Amino acid sequence: MKHIGVDLGGTNIVVGLMDEDGNIIKSYTRPTMSDRKTEEIFDDIIDMCKILIDEYKLSKSSLKGIGMGIPGEVDAKAGIINYSNNIPMKNFNVLEYMQKLCSLCDMDIDFYFANDADCAALGELIAGAGKGHSDLVILTLGTGVGGGIIINHKIYSGFYAGGAELGHQTIVHNGELCTCGNKGCLEAYASATALIRDAKKAALENPHSLLNSLAKNNVDNITAKIVFDAKDQKDEIATNLVENYIEYLSVGVANLINIFKPEILVLSGGISKQGEKLTTPLKEKVITKIFGNNLKTKIEIATLGNDAGLIGAGMLSR
Amino acid sequence: MKHIGVDLGGTNIVVGLMDEDGNIIKSYTRPTMSDRKTEEIFDDIIDMCKILIDEYKLSKSSLKGIGMGIPGEVDAKAGIINYSNNIPMKNFNVLEYMQKLCSLCDMDIDFYFANDADCAALGELIAGAGKGHSDLVILTLGTGVGGGIIINHKIYSGFYAGGAELGHQTIVHNGELCTCGNKGCLEAYASATALIRDAKKAALENPHSLLNSLAKNNVDNITAKIVFDAKDQKDEIATNLVENYIEYLSVGVANLINIFKPEILVLSGGISKQGEKLTTPLKEKVITKIFGNNLKTKIEIATLGNDAGLIGAGMLSR
Repeated sequence: MKHIGVDLGGTNIVVGLMDEDGNIIKSYTRPTMSDRKTEEIFDDIIDMCKILIDEYKLSKSSLKGIGMGIPGEVDAKAGIINYSNNIPMKNFNVLEYMQKLCSLCDMDIDFYFANDADCAALGELIAGAGKGHSDLVILTLGTGVGGGIIINHKIYSGFYAGGAELGHQTIVHNGELCTCGNKGCLEAYASATALIRDAKKAALENPHSLLNSLAKNNVDNITAKIVFDAKDQKDEIATNLVENYIEYLSVGVANLINIFKPEILVLSGGISKQGEKLTTPLKEKVITKIFGNNLKTKIEIATLGNDAGLIGAGMLSR
Repeated sequence: MKHIGVDLGGTNIVVGLMDEDGNIIKSYTRPTMSDRKTEEIFDDIIDMCKILIDEYKLSKSSLKGIGMGIPGEVDAKAGIINYSNNIPMKNFNVLEYMQKLCSLCDMDIDFYFANDADCAALGELIAGAGKGHSDLVILTLGTGVGGGIIINHKIYSGFYAGGAELGHQTIVHNGELCTCGNKGCLEAYASATALIRDAKKAALENPHSLLNSLAKNNVDNITAKIVFDAKDQKDEIATNLVENYIEYLSVGVANLINIFKPEILVLSGGISKQGEKLTTPLKEKVITKIFGNNLKTKIEIATLGNDAGLIGAGMLSR
């Protein structure tokens, strides 16, 4: 059986055909052009799905279903997109709209929907860092801090719609203001945005720090990678920034381990590219914070990169 | 079908017979005398089970199974108690030992095991505050802060043994020292012990506070109830203590709601007896902290009291 996955992003739509293990056989990409009408975006998706169905002569007996990762709050059972952050969609009955494809192909198709971060978690479980496991918690360290929970091979997204807001756990009561309006969220300390915020401040206060030269003497050029690079070159300011960053990240990771006792916790997103430079000191700090100080959970880096969401979407119909 | 539940506590052993809805038909209590040999404690349990089996003429066709709530870390699948905090048990093969009962009664019996806090969560779901729901998070506000998670009618206890350590999420980075060795755990702020700690300090610093007169001018008499009673009598110091307590509790509750999006979150333990005096201000504070500021999770007080663990243990075989 084959599976089609749809990764609807703010910039691109990717539609891919895959096998039962999440190996991508073929995929197509088109720009989302998110300021279009929602119907136009989904007409493109329908067209891309139809191209794959025709190309591979898929039928009811060879196509298990089509799964979609939605960047926002989706009511998976009803097939309704409540709202999206990046694409202006609201109360859109996507399940009903996608029936067009069934008419076009003259076949019944089973559709599945999930939040895109949840899809990425499922993708990593089935074909990435979590392969061979049944339970996984993923934490995405990017512009924000997102996450997903897989319990017994299935996405756990709680009783009501929306993904698990793992980045919005308070770790510092009355701490830094978060984008969500609360104070002291993990996201306000462990996102790339938070690291860059602190690095800009430190660079301005310390003109001789390597941060400035690596950023071509313009703090607006500072990226998370520049901070880690400056640390690798033994810059003291950057070393403190990274130490501080990993300390706060370890609080969020330890909380999730205390709560879920997962077999594996996966880090994804831009900052996770630091690999063992991130996980080795992180594990040391997590051990001191978890109950019993005995780390049984594996902490690993995601392996699928941008494909995780597409693969997870496809695997929704597995 | 009938179910037998065993609630093994540090003080008492309670063994009860119940129906499929968790209604207790008959129960027996004996002192645990926890300094005995583990085998002697379980000989008592076997004896109590046999009394119920004989009294109600239970057979393989009328007894669904025997479930046990263990105060400590239990490997439910293997039937091994790894260790207990309150009763000196270590690596005890309880499944093997309980086979004695099968010989005594000349019948096959299915045994089930779980952490006692997890049993209490299951009990509240099936017969208490969570009745009619499928998912529940419980937070026990007692000497410590414990908890349990029920997902789709089943205890979720993670990949490796031990209950969910919901009280050991860090909510104040580098905050108050917790009994677990970490700093800033929810338990260090939202347990009765934490409230009493803060109240003693405040009472000593404020001799005119009602806290002192209610405690008969001995701060060692201060209980959580005295703090709430003094607040009810408009004592300013006690009002601040309760306000502060609920503020920190709201951080932990909001974190769990952001992570689990549960249908219902239940509060149990001594402090939960304050009822709506606790939940009404708590909900107001939780709303300001959860993602989207839209509280869809019900926050309720547990209804089963001390029976929750026994009922949940019995319901393990449901």
